[in-house]
Amino acid sequence: MEQRPMSHSRTIVTKLVLPPDTNHMQTIFGGKVLAYIDEIAAIAAMKHSNKRAAVTASIDSVDFLSSAKVGDVLELEAVVSSTGRTSMEVFVTVHSRDLVTGATKLTTESFLTMVAMDENNKPTAVPGIYPETEAEKRLFDTGPARRDHRRLRREIIH
Amino acid sequence: MEQRPMSHSRTIVTKLVLPPDTNHMQTIFGGKVLAYIDEIAAIAAMKHSNKRAAVTASIDSVDFLSSAKVGDVLELEAVVSSTGRTSMEVFVTVHSRDLVTGATKLTTESFLTMVAMDENNKPTAVPGIYPETEAEKRLFDTGPARRDHRRLRREIIH
Amino acid sequence: MEQRPMSHSRTIVTKLVLPPDTNHMQTIFGGKVLAYIDEIAAIAAMKHSNKRAAVTASIDSVDFLSSAKVGDVLELEAVVSSTGRTSMEVFVTVHSRDLVTGATKLTTESFLTMVAMDENNKPTAVPGIYPETEAEKRLFDTGPARRDHRRLRREIIH
Amino acid sequence: MEQRPMSHSRTIVTKLVLPPDTNHMQTIFGGKVLAYIDEIAAIAAMKHSNKRAAVTASIDSVDFLSSAKVGDVLELEAVVSSTGRTSMEVFVTVHSRDLVTGATKLTTESFLTMVAMDENNKPTAVPGIYPETEAEKRLFDTGPARRDHRRLRREIIH
Amino acid sequence: MEQRPMSHSRTIVTKLVLPPDTNHMQTIFGGKVLAYIDEIAAIAAMKHSNKRAAVTASIDSVDFLSSAKVGDVLELEAVVSSTGRTSMEVFVTVHSRDLVTGATKLTTESFLTMVAMDENNKPTAVPGIYPETEAEKRLFDTGPARRDHRRLRREIIH
Amino acid sequence: MEQRPMSHSRTIVTKLVLPPDTNHMQTIFGGKVLAYIDEIAAIAAMKHSNKRAAVTASIDSVDFLSSAKVGDVLELEAVVSSTGRTSMEVFVTVHSRDLVTGATKLTTESFLTMVAMDENNKPTAVPGIYPETEAEKRLFDTGPARRDHRRLRREIIH
Ligand SMILES: CC(C)(COP(=O)(O)OP(=O)(O)OC[C@H]1O[C@@H](n2cnc3c(N)ncnc32)[C@H](O)[C@@H]1OP(=O)(O)O)[C@@H](O)C(=O)NCCC(=O)NCCS
Ligand SMILES: CC(C)(COP(=O)(O)OP(=O)(O)OC[C@H]1O[C@@H](n2cnc3c(N)ncnc32)[C@H](O)[C@@H]1OP(=O)(O)O)[C@@H](O)C(=O)NCCC(=O)NCCS
Ligand SMILES: CC(C)(COP(=O)(O)OP(=O)(O)OC[C@H]1O[C@@H](n2cnc3c(N)ncnc32)[C@H](O)[C@@H]1OP(=O)(O)O)[C@@H](O)C(=O)NCCC(=O)NCCS
Ligand SMILES: CC(C)(COP(=O)(O)OP(=O)(O)OC[C@H]1O[C@@H](n2cnc3c(N)ncnc32)[C@H](O)[C@@H]1OP(=O)(O)O)[C@@H](O)C(=O)NCCC(=O)NCCS
Repeated sequence: MEQRPMSHSRTIVTKLVLPPDTNHMQTIFGGKVLAYIDEIAAIAAMKHSNKRAAVTASIDSVDFLSSAKVGDVLELEAVVSSTGRTSMEVFVTVHSRDLVTGATKLTTESFLTMVAMDENNKPTAVPGIYPETEAEKRLFDTGPARRDHRRLRREIIH
Repeated sequence: MEQRPMSHSRTIVTKLVLPPDTNHMQTIFGGKVLAYIDEIAAIAAMKHSNKRAAVTASIDSVDFLSSAKVGDVLELEAVVSSTGRTSMEVFVTVHSRDLVTGATKLTTESFLTMVAMDENNKPTAVPGIYPETEAEKRLFDTGPARRDHRRLRREIIH
Repeated sequence: MEQRPMSHSRTIVTKLVLPPDTNHMQTIFGGKVLAYIDEIAAIAAMKHSNKRAAVTASIDSVDFLSSAKVGDVLELEAVVSSTGRTSMEVFVTVHSRDLVTGATKLTTESFLTMVAMDENNKPTAVPGIYPETEAEKRLFDTGPARRDHRRLRREIIH
Repeated sequence: MEQRPMSHSRTIVTKLVLPPDTNHMQTIFGGKVLAYIDEIAAIAAMKHSNKRAAVTASIDSVDFLSSAKVGDVLELEAVVSSTGRTSMEVFVTVHSRDLVTGATKLTTESFLTMVAMDENNKPTAVPGIYPETEAEKRLFDTGPARRDHRRLRREIIH
Repeated sequence: MEQRPMSHSRTIVTKLVLPPDTNHMQTIFGGKVLAYIDEIAAIAAMKHSNKRAAVTASIDSVDFLSSAKVGDVLELEAVVSSTGRTSMEVFVTVHSRDLVTGATKLTTESFLTMVAMDENNKPTAVPGIYPETEAEKRLFDTGPARRDHRRLRREIIH
Repeated sequence: MEQRPMSHSRTIVTKLVLPPDTNHMQTIFGGKVLAYIDEIAAIAAMKHSNKRAAVTASIDSVDFLSSAKVGDVLELEAVVSSTGRTSMEVFVTVHSRDLVTGATKLTTESFLTMVAMDENNKPTAVPGIYPETEAEKRLFDTGPARRDHRRLRREIIH
């Protein structure tokens, strides 16, 4: 099956933080950020695989390093970082930008595993990927180790 | 500071899966489930700590074991499982119920760390907890190990 | 047809009151509470009847005894309280909880009539119920009187 | 205090029924209609009283006489039908229109009691009303009877 | 094909401006107003044509003459102002009302072109219209000039 | 006042088209696209001006050249293309991508005028811009002509 460059799946999303996304202190809910992360990961996976559906199999642990408040802007970026037969690992970064100062902070980084589904809702094969830049190469090369670690994690828990 | 029984924070949420929550195959988005998990964890943490704001510091890895489709019901349950000085670990389980067969499946389980915030948006101390049942005791006793594992994880990554 | 215990349909929903649910004074809209009441009643009716659709035939008068503000938690509980051939009466209670004081107030109580629908969108027969506790017995025994009162009400109006 | 014609508060809302408003059979949720009824009643009450907040004290029983499906249009009309010192009774009618046939059906009618609130969230006096047409006169003249019936209802229940 | 009076398509929508519709200064987003304008135009076009779908072909330039803030009411009115074979020009006006003063301001006026679609998502013929009042006659008579101007605009751009 | 490169305001948004965004034929509402255009224009304007609020003064006519259906992806791009004293002209392009074929189509292009607002909700001065690429230069150089045309348009209408 065809191989595609990692850049093919690269996806950018920019969001304004609005009152309904925030708690009593006007800072964004972690769950809202997680929903945005899942949505951009699904788009990146569907762009890579040319399938209309990609379901989330897992999300690795997420640490929220800094918060974002009403009126800030969230900048998300996603790229398929590694592929299996039917699964794709997607790497997502989230930054928040204070519009008045222009300062940008890392909110969180995350790896998700998405599985491509065919019309009968069964897992279906996806193309492979290849890295083109140095940063892509590092992400790509460390993919198998992350995959092993996930398999181990599942075996311990269940 | 006062100690509270784990049962004090126990919270239940029931949700009907509706079309806007689902993808092209009518199965729920992982991101929607993650947002529900974060919301119930925040409620449990705020009930335990009597604070109006609890922010999500982290969520451990989440494996989605089964999906849910439009017309199914999601049943979430959360309880504070361990406490630090300002942080609370919350354990959340999600089941999906097929209304026609009545069958219930585990969708996912997850641990989150929520931090109580005061009026100036600074971490603030929370009461301790004590377990009352056998199941609660198991959750409680394994808390410190999970906490160590999380600290280790953060040190490796950053 | 099979009889089911009332407890089988018991459903609990917990909601955080957020800015978009509230008016200019930061108190929740009555319409939002009514929508939550209808949603939990539908879930309870579908759990009892094992049908994917239950439509609302009527809701008895609702008095809002106290309000809830942004940052409060709403706790709803529903149970099928009486059954006809195709209709189910559902009893719903709503409490609001102030997270800082921990105090809980009754917001409102309500009875709804839900009708189970088959695949052709026609009313379809539902199982009967039986009470198990004293409180359930009181609800169950007064069901026929409420049903008569509703029939009378419909005849007067139309 | 000033008297205002009933027509001053007359309010019209037209809504397209969309997928997120509907259940598995593509018919609108009763709770969605109740939320729309409450919203238009609040607008009518605020137009009458020139206050930024009007809370729902009660809604009389609602019978859903016919359903509405995705692609239909809901037509709501509200008018203040009677006034007390701080409370206003609002009469709301809801029709559904099938866009293809052009046929219109009564979905439901309802009376709500809204209370005007001042800046401290306390009930505040509202202007009186007077009817101008025959239909308005009938609504207005039967107001005191409905008000008595509601007071009686509250005394019986609590 | 049948001719219909312009009044047949007249549609009114009233909306309360709520926090999620507004920016940091609590004034409504232009995009929210544009979405409301498009929705009411679609309803007017579907009422005129008795079709379940009408797509937006274009919207003429929109100037926002005044803003609306949280707690204001938006009053929209739409009417089909001119017809082609499959397209309908819809004229929409938006006023905002300050509930405390009762003052009403013009927010914006807009012309949209909607195209009726059949079950195969192909443009389908619509009835003609005729004006009945003086104001309707002015709108109707100037329709062809607006239509020519739009055709010119498209030719220049593409 | 400082000058900024056009690239500083460049903003990208990617959206999955979901059922609630679409009409009966599963194609996206024009109003939804207009709301997305306004949102990205506001972000670009706020990034350029370092203000927390930018209101929409006007949007030029928008022609929808192709539609997008459920499961497609919308790709929006915005850049400040010209500046006045307090106003910024923002150029927005929208493409839709069919995920299965990978084909991309132009949905629409649009110019909006956003005005930067200070803390008292009054128009406030913004930095100028300079183009760096050939394409940016063309956009920049034609800005004054578009601005004159808009002023003319406003004078004719009002
Ligand atoms: C969570 C946060 C408040 C911690 O801030 P901090 O400066 O590290 O504060 P402290 O060092 O006092 O830590 C507070 C507590 O959080 C815990 N903590 C911090 N980061 C953590 C993480 N990634 N995972 C688990 N616990 C964490 C600490 O162990 C400490 O717990 P303790 O008081 O029980 O011992 C801060 O990182 C933050 O604001 N993050 C964003 C939270 C947020 O807004 N989430 C929503 C979406 S972005
Ligand atoms: C409710 C509805 C299905 C009843 O239809 P119908 O032709 O009257 O059907 P039936 O006479 O067979 O009645 C079915 C059951 O509903 C009950 N019912 C009908 N109208 C009722 C009302 N207003 N209040 C309480 N129960 C009612 C009947 O008593 C009967 O109960 P039973 O089978 O337990 O004896 C019909 O009125 C309807 O579709 N209404 C709209 C429902 C809806 O879509 N609601 C959401 C918002 S519009
Ligand atoms: C409605 C409410 C303000 C009444 O408060 P209260 O302390 O009883 O105040 P009052 O006795 O002065 O009553 C105010 C008016 O409301 C009327 N009222 C009170 N409860 C009512 C009810 N259940 N049904 C109809 N009218 C009612 C009173 O008759 C009085 O009317 P009047 O001034 O025209 O004579 C109070 O019960 C409340 O806040 N309820 C919650 C309202 C709300 O937030 N609803 C949204 C969802 S929870
Ligand atoms: C836009 C608005 C602030 C302009 O107010 P004003 O009193 O005309 O202010 P000014 O005359 O100082 O104009 C401010 C700038 O806006 C520009 N402007 C005003 N109306 C405009 C229009 N319809 N189209 C394009 N530009 C316009 C002016 O040319 C001026 O630009 P400059 O400073 O770069 O020279 C005012 O009309 C308004 O508040 N409109 C509502 C905006 C809004 O809330 N939109 C969202 C939905 S309602």
